[in-house]
Amino acid sequence: MINIAVAQSGGPTCAINASLAGVIREALSDDRIEKVFGSKNGIDGIINDNLVDLSEQVNDEYSLGLLKCTPATLLGSCRIKLKPHCEDEATYETIFRTFEKNNIKAFFYIGGNDSMDTVHKLSLYAAQKGIDVKVVGIPKTIDNDVAITDHTPGYGSAAKYIATTVSEIIKDSSVYNLKSVTIIEIMGRDAGWLTASSALPRVNGQPAPQLIYLPEVPFSIDKFINDINKLHETENSVVVAVSEGLKDESGQYAASGHLSEAVDVFGHKYLAGLGKFLETVVSGRIGCKVRSIELNVMQRCSSHLSSGTDLDEAETVGREAVKASFNGVTGKMMVFKRVSTSPYEIKVESCDISLIANKEKLFPLEWITEDKNNVSDKALDYILPLIQGEIITPTKNGLPIHLELK
Amino acid sequence: MINIAVAQSGGPTCAINASLAGVIREALSDDRIEKVFGSKNGIDGIINDNLVDLSEQVNDEYSLGLLKCTPATLLGSCRIKLKPHCEDEATYETIFRTFEKNNIKAFFYIGGNDSMDTVHKLSLYAAQKGIDVKVVGIPKTIDNDVAITDHTPGYGSAAKYIATTVSEIIKDSSVYNLKSVTIIEIMGRDAGWLTASSALPRVNGQPAPQLIYLPEVPFSIDKFINDINKLHETENSVVVAVSEGLKDESGQYAASGHLSEAVDVFGHKYLAGLGKFLETVVSGRIGCKVRSIELNVMQRCSSHLSSGTDLDEAETVGREAVKASFNGVTGKMMVFKRVSTSPYEIKVESCDISLIANKEKLFPLEWITEDKNNVSDKALDYILPLIQGEIITPTKNGLPIHLELK
Repeated sequence: MINIAVAQSGGPTCAINASLAGVIREALSDDRIEKVFGSKNGIDGIINDNLVDLSEQVNDEYSLGLLKCTPATLLGSCRIKLKPHCEDEATYETIFRTFEKNNIKAFFYIGGNDSMDTVHKLSLYAAQKGIDVKVVGIPKTIDNDVAITDHTPGYGSAAKYIATTVSEIIKDSSVYNLKSVTIIEIMGRDAGWLTASSALPRVNGQPAPQLIYLPEVPFSIDKFINDINKLHETENSVVVAVSEGLKDESGQYAASGHLSEAVDVFGHKYLAGLGKFLETVVSGRIGCKVRSIELNVMQRCSSHLSSGTDLDEAETVGREAVKASFNGVTGKMMVFKRVSTSPYEIKVESCDISLIANKEKLFPLEWITEDKNNVSDKALDYILPLIQGEIITPTKNGLPIHLELK
Repeated sequence: MINIAVAQSGGPTCAINASLAGVIREALSDDRIEKVFGSKNGIDGIINDNLVDLSEQVNDEYSLGLLKCTPATLLGSCRIKLKPHCEDEATYETIFRTFEKNNIKAFFYIGGNDSMDTVHKLSLYAAQKGIDVKVVGIPKTIDNDVAITDHTPGYGSAAKYIATTVSEIIKDSSVYNLKSVTIIEIMGRDAGWLTASSALPRVNGQPAPQLIYLPEVPFSIDKFINDINKLHETENSVVVAVSEGLKDESGQYAASGHLSEAVDVFGHKYLAGLGKFLETVVSGRIGCKVRSIELNVMQRCSSHLSSGTDLDEAETVGREAVKASFNGVTGKMMVFKRVSTSPYEIKVESCDISLIANKEKLFPLEWITEDKNNVSDKALDYILPLIQGEIITPTKNGLPIHLELK
């Protein structure tokens, strides 16, 4: 019998724990596996031998079910980027010593683009040294910007949160009988997938948001003001969805002068304040009632509003990763292939990580309308199946309960 | 047979349509009432004879149920403040002409503090002129700052949204193994009721938010920084809830220099940016990872997360208002009296509007902890019953559906 290890990395989502539940569930049902070790704070837990025996703590239907709808990462996260092993062999030796010491024959890393880079490097090292440890990537990111896979676990729940909340904000912003602009700022530094999901209320006949600006198209403030003014000729309440990452023709962030100075550990500039900036612009140039709303981390942590489809798929991809490792899969990431959109059907496969790591899948330009201020029905056809299914979160005292490590 | 009219005013909430449903439901069941007129955009619809026959549009279980969980105001809203009739008799004559023309013998105004002022003035005018039109106020405000009543419909749902979201943000903000501060900005210009509800996750054993600052206590930035530093000695992730209306010792808004210039029609300064301001302060003086989150209008429009208790009570108070009008009640607002907290029991009464209008009920100082940075368990005992009960929002295509006027 062997042991396996699993870790979570990158920004939290609503579905990353569902994939963890999938890994544990599959391991519990497979006689070849004795223990599932959870690595605390991503790869950091492997480096520092900071492991927890998940097969002991999460091994019944109740705890697996609760884990599935617990937001953020049960095991914590990290933002560590490994150097290539030619530059820092010591870290790789430490990692594989932890694997050896604990009889860990397969390692599953649930994460986004940056985490897949780690999967790639670990599998290369193992291959080069002839070490039989399978390394498999399980995708997650609300951004949906990972190559090859049809979509990423976590995106559907974030899209459902955004579409539901936008639908409620549309009602909220239309109560007064006067011209107004409501600006909703949505996550997405380079890719417009999340912002595009704000268009979903249209499927149910809601009139807004009338304007949607994605980072794939250069943003012009003059055009933005013109677009609003044109709508105000016939409508009172204009709702606008903007991606936090909008850039002007020269590639500068639209609210450059208003950025906070913080950068994350990968050197990404921390974006904040585009909505507030545009609020000021509308106030000055149009002068009507205006409000900006930043959906902020609620986009990635509102597990009470998760998509049932998303959580089920996230769990499935976790299970399939474990199965794949027994079939010799390593250095690969699990991906979704869409078999059909209507009726919706996907299958799970694996793909060489070198084709995926450090790549970014942008929103297709052909799904952006001619006016460059909305998305087409084709985009909605793509997103809609991913937000289906309501989940019932377990509650106590009227509040959701979440699984905690002992 | 008589007709009645109903209008909605002030900022939207998740429960204001439940009270409207209550008024309609009671009227449909009372043979003495023929029609229920809805006045569009508050009292403005009465002034301009812009009425809609609700008994024709909302008269079955499905539409009443859907109305009950539709956010914002079905009839629109307004922010009109009537002058006293001695200064503007013409408007009063117009209003009562609309009543007479449509055989309206009772008018129900669902609104907050400012709207109760209108109820007061209309009932004084009717009394003075000997006109037999009953005018009854039905309270609503997420702020819970209305005098006499134990609480206001709308508060419970907002509190449930805040507590649930804070509970999820606590998970989101604790994934990394490093010192961090998460600042959550909550509505409440002068009263801390909403911000206090952020403490509810404590009931389920959640460790945060560790710091809660209400506008009832002067806010000191030095103390705020000290409070965080002290916690960082033993904890990584510090979550702070702040009311948008925090003021310093001199009564100035804590983020005065950062206020937007907009004011609403009552001359209230539009508050925005306290969270961002404090984020900058923490970044400069502590230097750790910091993020601010404004819960914004989602606090008042996230009907998918309404409190069942709140919606039921909001509907009841609407029904009771109609009943009361037949018992001769006028110039009064419906209020809740708390009979018992455990088990929770309330009764509905009516109270002279002159004791309520233009008054503000602040959060009790004795429910604020000695350190002035949290609320006591007594506060939680008071709030907890109001957030009980999950509702199932009707959905289509994975998104909530809401009632619309034809």
